Amino acid sequence: MLDGLFRPRGVGVIGASSNPYSIGHIVLKNLVDYGYKGPIFPINPKGGHVRSFKAYKSILEVPDVVDLVNISVAAKFIPDIIEECGQKGVKFAIVHSAGFKEVGEEGLARERKMVEIAHRHGMRIYGPNCQGIQNSDPEVSVYANFTFVPMKPGNISIIAQGGGMGELLKLHLHKVGLGHRLYCSYGNECDLTMPEILEYYGQDEGTRVIMMQTESFKNPAVFLEVASKITPHKPILAMKCGRSAEGSVAVSSHTGSLIDQNAMTQAMYKQAGILEFTDSDEMVKAAIAFSTQSPPPGNRIGLVTNTGGPGIQAVDTAIASGLELATWSDQGRERLKSELYAEASTGNPVDVVATAGADHYFAAMDTLLHEEETDMVMVFFVTAPFVDLDAIAERIEEAAASSAKPVVVVIETIAKWGGLLDRIRAAGVPVYEFPEDGVRALAAMHRYATLRARKTEAPPELEVNRAEAAKLLAGYSGRDGYLSQIDAFALLELYGISVPKRARIREMEDLVAGAAEVGFPCVLKVDSADVVHKSDEGGVILGIADEHELAAAFGDLQKKFARVDAEYFLQRQLPAAKELILGALDAPGLGKLVMFGLGGIFVEIMKDVSFAVAPLSKPEAQEMMREIQGFSLLSGSRGEASVDLDALESLLLRVSRLVADHPSIAEMDLNPVFATADGATAVDVRIRVR
Amino acid sequence: MLDGLFRPRGVGVIGASSNPYSIGHIVLKNLVDYGYKGPIFPINPKGGHVRSFKAYKSILEVPDVVDLVNISVAAKFIPDIIEECGQKGVKFAIVHSAGFKEVGEEGLARERKMVEIAHRHGMRIYGPNCQGIQNSDPEVSVYANFTFVPMKPGNISIIAQGGGMGELLKLHLHKVGLGHRLYCSYGNECDLTMPEILEYYGQDEGTRVIMMQTESFKNPAVFLEVASKITPHKPILAMKCGRSAEGSVAVSSHTGSLIDQNAMTQAMYKQAGILEFTDSDEMVKAAIAFSTQSPPPGNRIGLVTNTGGPGIQAVDTAIASGLELATWSDQGRERLKSELYAEASTGNPVDVVATAGADHYFAAMDTLLHEEETDMVMVFFVTAPFVDLDAIAERIEEAAASSAKPVVVVIETIAKWGGLLDRIRAAGVPVYEFPEDGVRALAAMHRYATLRARKTEAPPELEVNRAEAAKLLAGYSGRDGYLSQIDAFALLELYGISVPKRARIREMEDLVAGAAEVGFPCVLKVDSADVVHKSDEGGVILGIADEHELAAAFGDLQKKFARVDAEYFLQRQLPAAKELILGALDAPGLGKLVMFGLGGIFVEIMKDVSFAVAPLSKPEAQEMMREIQGFSLLSGSRGEASVDLDALESLLLRVSRLVADHPSIAEMDLNPVFATADGATAVDVRIRVR
Repeated sequence: MLDGLFRPRGVGVIGASSNPYSIGHIVLKNLVDYGYKGPIFPINPKGGHVRSFKAYKSILEVPDVVDLVNISVAAKFIPDIIEECGQKGVKFAIVHSAGFKEVGEEGLARERKMVEIAHRHGMRIYGPNCQGIQNSDPEVSVYANFTFVPMKPGNISIIAQGGGMGELLKLHLHKVGLGHRLYCSYGNECDLTMPEILEYYGQDEGTRVIMMQTESFKNPAVFLEVASKITPHKPILAMKCGRSAEGSVAVSSHTGSLIDQNAMTQAMYKQAGILEFTDSDEMVKAAIAFSTQSPPPGNRIGLVTNTGGPGIQAVDTAIASGLELATWSDQGRERLKSELYAEASTGNPVDVVATAGADHYFAAMDTLLHEEETDMVMVFFVTAPFVDLDAIAERIEEAAASSAKPVVVVIETIAKWGGLLDRIRAAGVPVYEFPEDGVRALAAMHRYATLRARKTEAPPELEVNRAEAAKLLAGYSGRDGYLSQIDAFALLELYGISVPKRARIREMEDLVAGAAEVGFPCVLKVDSADVVHKSDEGGVILGIADEHELAAAFGDLQKKFARVDAEYFLQRQLPAAKELILGALDAPGLGKLVMFGLGGIFVEIMKDVSFAVAPLSKPEAQEMMREIQGFSLLSGSRGEASVDLDALESLLLRVSRLVADHPSIAEMDLNPVFATADGATAVDVRIRVR
Repeated sequence: MLDGLFRPRGVGVIGASSNPYSIGHIVLKNLVDYGYKGPIFPINPKGGHVRSFKAYKSILEVPDVVDLVNISVAAKFIPDIIEECGQKGVKFAIVHSAGFKEVGEEGLARERKMVEIAHRHGMRIYGPNCQGIQNSDPEVSVYANFTFVPMKPGNISIIAQGGGMGELLKLHLHKVGLGHRLYCSYGNECDLTMPEILEYYGQDEGTRVIMMQTESFKNPAVFLEVASKITPHKPILAMKCGRSAEGSVAVSSHTGSLIDQNAMTQAMYKQAGILEFTDSDEMVKAAIAFSTQSPPPGNRIGLVTNTGGPGIQAVDTAIASGLELATWSDQGRERLKSELYAEASTGNPVDVVATAGADHYFAAMDTLLHEEETDMVMVFFVTAPFVDLDAIAERIEEAAASSAKPVVVVIETIAKWGGLLDRIRAAGVPVYEFPEDGVRALAAMHRYATLRARKTEAPPELEVNRAEAAKLLAGYSGRDGYLSQIDAFALLELYGISVPKRARIREMEDLVAGAAEVGFPCVLKVDSADVVHKSDEGGVILGIADEHELAAAFGDLQKKFARVDAEYFLQRQLPAAKELILGALDAPGLGKLVMFGLGGIFVEIMKDVSFAVAPLSKPEAQEMMREIQGFSLLSGSRGEASVDLDALESLLLRVSRLVADHPSIAEMDLNPVFATADGATAVDVRIRVR
């Protein structure tokens, strides 16, 4: 429980001083200015007073309970201070100071020592090198942070790795007159971790929406687990900065060349049901909608406007954001016709026309909100000098309040009439300034509704021979390299993955038996740890029709690879089919990602691939297939026969289970997989272990 | 010349009244409140006074010159009023009133009559059913419009079809303290057209940037011509609302199923060098950058920040917007190291750290702006309580002013320190509130620089047999249908387009001669106006190897198509090659669009196609090829042999010339085109005439 951090019974400010530019001073000032409900204890070795507070020379002198301390003294003093805090029974220390891990060995040692001391006393360290926290709950009202955006109660909580971005999100809520609930910028995560804080946010009753910003994940697996538990009842809106970073996982397979941190984050967000954003403004505006509106039952938007252009722009944005235009019942259309001006347009958007008054707006909104096939409503209003703005505000509020469907309003006006915005906002209806913003906020709510409604289930139990697979892989223990072809196919088979008939060929004498086992036509491949790109190096001979050709092919390969330590490998050549690629690779700290796509140019040129975290559940495997743009090439929706989607699903499940079960598999490439109307077979495979 | 409209020597307000909610009253008030420099003449049949002005009973009574009138009386009175205005020598009438074309036949007749009267007097009508115009030039200061956004001088001019969107653009300039230059919302375009106004904007010396919004183009060809002349010296930022409209051209060919108004607009904007936007907020923010900054010499951005996260977010946005991160010279890096704090980061972004002062900001900006390989600079600044904000503003201004490279600033602060934003803005440096906004504004400037620098030339002269082609098409005059296969291929050949050998087959007896001419293998097709989808209806037999098979195939087709009026058509079957699709179709009011893409699934599933306006110039044809995502499949960049790009270019040029020369061609589909290392041949063709 993090109550000691977010609901402290007393706060000590270690390093509090009268210098108005010092962090200690600013923290103290913020605690006072925002009316922290508990006692505040400045700590300063000189004693005396800081502002009007008695300053204690040591935390040990404080006569009352102190749950939280903010520390901004030089790093070298901090371990000793932590020791004293521990003795005092402090529960959390926010360490603003820098001078730890980020400055090298000495700092790292200091950081470890600090954490060790804290843990000895059952105390936790927050930071270091961080801003701090806020909780606007009027019962607590704690601003234990040295930043400047004013705090007032709200129900949007913010968790940010970087202080600059966290403050930015908070700032833009503030700019539209909204407060926030909990806030933290968590810095280095030397002890207390982001998922622990996120979990607390999830349980906080005053938090309705969570906005988060991260740059990296210290423990993605734990984050995924925590986030997955929150999103069914509370939306998490998240952005990951560093999406374009060159720090992408460098691996040699196809899969590797496509994956990056961004794909890992997206896969993780998808699995956890997190709403991803790449634009901070858009995320803030969506959070505002979530803070008062309920997610829509479907994706059909109804629009009300009193001017044409912005309505059309709203339609364009809605379609581009995955929404559909609602249509009205005859009854609804009749009501619109009878209650609006004759020149009003009763389609979607409903154009009530510029001279429309409060009752017209009400009639249009009320009609749409009662239409069964309208899931959400956006209202656009450009202030016209001929209408009563107060009455309009009142009736917009009234209509919005009468329905559980989400409503947002876009108002085009100047400061003179700005009270209109404030008034509608105060009534809990989100107000925006561009039609695009209102539509995108509703679209985000729809995305959340879809995520929340998606089928989630545990990865299925599969009949696989895990023990035998482990034994096979144990044979490669300690090596960093590729499995032999014969082993790679054997491993797939142990997990029930369909592979072609094959035979190991060491010498000329093996050919006859091999051919008998495999049959013609067949493919002969070199199988050697020294030859990774077999095809490129001429190590694959396709379309061998008989024993004579086989012998010749074998002779050729033997000559070509005389100088490397090579065996050979014969496999049945399958008739041409739809080619797919399945891959898996390490996602450090998370486990494995699985990749799915159509083969060849679809992967290489079109980047038409999907990713998910292994092991997959059935709905996840189905979604992965459907996510690629080329899915209709598989599903037969273009008049061709569908490939065997059940077999593909099974293949995805089994591949994901294989890589999840055996962490020593660093990457894996099934390329191509041949998919037909009655099966899916891995025709070539490459598996790297580590 | 539109000086009478935008720089009137006197304005009459016809319909001026004392009712504060009437349009006439508001226009009069706006003219007065914004200090119109000429005389104002209220016209009201009752005479007397309106506000403090003598009201004239008729325009004919006005003793002075009146260049412009604003008319807001009922539509039925307007033709007579126009007659009087004409007699008075008025040059332009802004008709605010509705009741014309949009209300049906009677209104249309009234509109025609009004224009006819006006033209008889050499007068022009603006509107009707529109807002009006503004010109903030202090020498004129005319607010002949009934809207509410305050006017002050600026250098961004706005031209909008819809009043709501025009006002929205203006409003958001106003909200950041900027003015605008010319403004118009042009409504119905019954007489004075948008391109005429745009041309005036292009010539107006006080206009540095043009923002435009349209919903439809009355005369796309003229617009294209006018806009193309402006963009080399003045940026046009444009958005087209109704991008998702179902009103897309409904045609039966592949080409048709892909094209829509949006593709036409994009092709037109591309040719004219117009910057397209789909988001109004983004367009306004880009316009702000253009209003004071010069386009960058290249795409390399340098970033300066005092906090990490927003810098990373700026990097992500820059990469996603087509910019590259600049790198510094050793000298530059040395200067950064010596002039910034030790803990500052001297990579890109330069992180001057939170405690950095004015001199640090100056040093970082000045260094980057003097780096040869840095083309633009964005500065992010979160206000820290420990720094001197005035000094920071001063030195940011100083650094920005010392370079011709564009600079934008993003400031994260609260209203208390808002003066900082105002001050930097007043110095002519654009200020934004989100890092994404600053980056996108710079990226838009880079897009403009690229458009302006692109090679433009006239479509080339081609050796084609235009006269013979016209004769062939004349044979179809008055018909709305498809050319026969034999004619379609002949037409292509007249324009120098490579086609397979072919022969017309009417009866069994033609087969031997046909086969001798064409050779084996060959393809037999039904050729009938009644059979449009030949393949789907079983009317194409491929891979005919000899005379025996040919006779059998002919027998089959004759039986199958016994009931329709059919001929047959023999053509040489070409070896498999890269398949492409080329199409052309009507773009009403503009001429023809040409479409280019890879064949089959690339078009149908991936929608990987490009469009341009016919006839094409060589650079345009080259750009069309390079615009598709799959271009690397053609260019051989993946290790394969390149196809003959010169032949493809020639094919595009010739197709575009053919459809441009012959307006009766309604649509055309070359599908597939076979492209090889030494040519490009149209293997199948469908041409519809009208």
